[in-house]
Amino acid sequence: MNQPQLSGRRAVTTAPLHALLAHRWSPRGFDAAHELDDAELVTLLEAARWAPSANNSQPWRFLVTRRGEPAFDTVADLLNPGNRAWAPTAGALILVAAKASDETGRSRPWALYDAGQAVAALSLQAQADGLSVHQIGGFDAAAARHIFDLDETLVPLVVVAVGRHDPAAPLPEALEQREHAPRTREPLEALLLHDPRRSRNVA
Amino acid sequence: MNQPQLSGRRAVTTAPLHALLAHRWSPRGFDAAHELDDAELVTLLEAARWAPSANNSQPWRFLVTRRGEPAFDTVADLLNPGNRAWAPTAGALILVAAKASDETGRSRPWALYDAGQAVAALSLQAQADGLSVHQIGGFDAAAARHIFDLDETLVPLVVVAVGRHDPAAPLPEALEQREHAPRTREPLEALLLHDPRRSRNVA
Repeated sequence: MNQPQLSGRRAVTTAPLHALLAHRWSPRGFDAAHELDDAELVTLLEAARWAPSANNSQPWRFLVTRRGEPAFDTVADLLNPGNRAWAPTAGALILVAAKASDETGRSRPWALYDAGQAVAALSLQAQADGLSVHQIGGFDAAAARHIFDLDETLVPLVVVAVGRHDPAAPLPEALEQREHAPRTREPLEALLLHDPRRSRNVA
Repeated sequence: MNQPQLSGRRAVTTAPLHALLAHRWSPRGFDAAHELDDAELVTLLEAARWAPSANNSQPWRFLVTRRGEPAFDTVADLLNPGNRAWAPTAGALILVAAKASDETGRSRPWALYDAGQAVAALSLQAQADGLSVHQIGGFDAAAARHIFDLDETLVPLVVVAVGRHDPAAPLPEALEQREHAPRTREPLEALLLHDPRRSRNVA
């Protein structure tokens, strides 16, 4: 098992975060020679598996492909050109789909939300294992559905690139700049909703 | 700051998970005397704030209420009766909404998914801080929209109950049983999608 990564790209926060959260980021530079073994992949999937979900519905599905397998190249070919430039250097590309309705056809309103929770858990387990994750929304979901024969209850959401970060990995110039740009987030205040009755009550 | 919780309800996995993930679960028994201070709440929100999202769109919004504030009681009243029986003992109830379209009205297809990632990060930070989270989907989202004046770009998703777990907290009998029932998940194999061409190629 690798060591957890401590990068210089720690989140700038007004409160100290747990190291796994503070040091997580989404690199594009992966070690093209690094391979993920079965145990590493199972650990990542177990992290996702144990995420919470509405009524424990577990509406997450994974198509796991490793570099060197034909399905990996198929997933890579589904990516938008900008992502194809770097993602195939990851050790694995995992197509994630939400199972948006149950066996009786009933819709699961939290399926996408819960799938996000599962991938977040997978990403933090990766961080703990010295691996990095970069999630990719830019791919041909319709083609993924066709090629991998995904039924209508499945919503392809992201391709998760996971592997070992390599700060020296060559990247196209525009991506190289983004790789080293400061990480940014909205100020916390911009994320907060307020009770509209509060100001009326005070007045 | 409290100590991280190590419960007897560790996830049963075929691979060792990071302790934060392995020990996270969703209790209903909270310490009704425990209060969350500003620093604890800010830390939780910072964890959510630094989650990844599609194009860094950060489509998560939080209405934070603490026990003792009028808005807390309002949120508690929005919960389904089964949740009202225990959730008000949490130190905070946080209404989470996805910001499902941007300023120009353009839809954000990953808003719900990304909101799930943010709450997952918040939940793991809570775990690191000796706090517990129980997410609640069973609440009156339409009433929440009306009372808190949420515009149409916001999708109320869950109420996050966060506080200090109290194993001795009184619960209605049915919930008491669920509180101590084994945690379960689908077998990993049931979550995996397979390349349909693979069997054809092998044949």
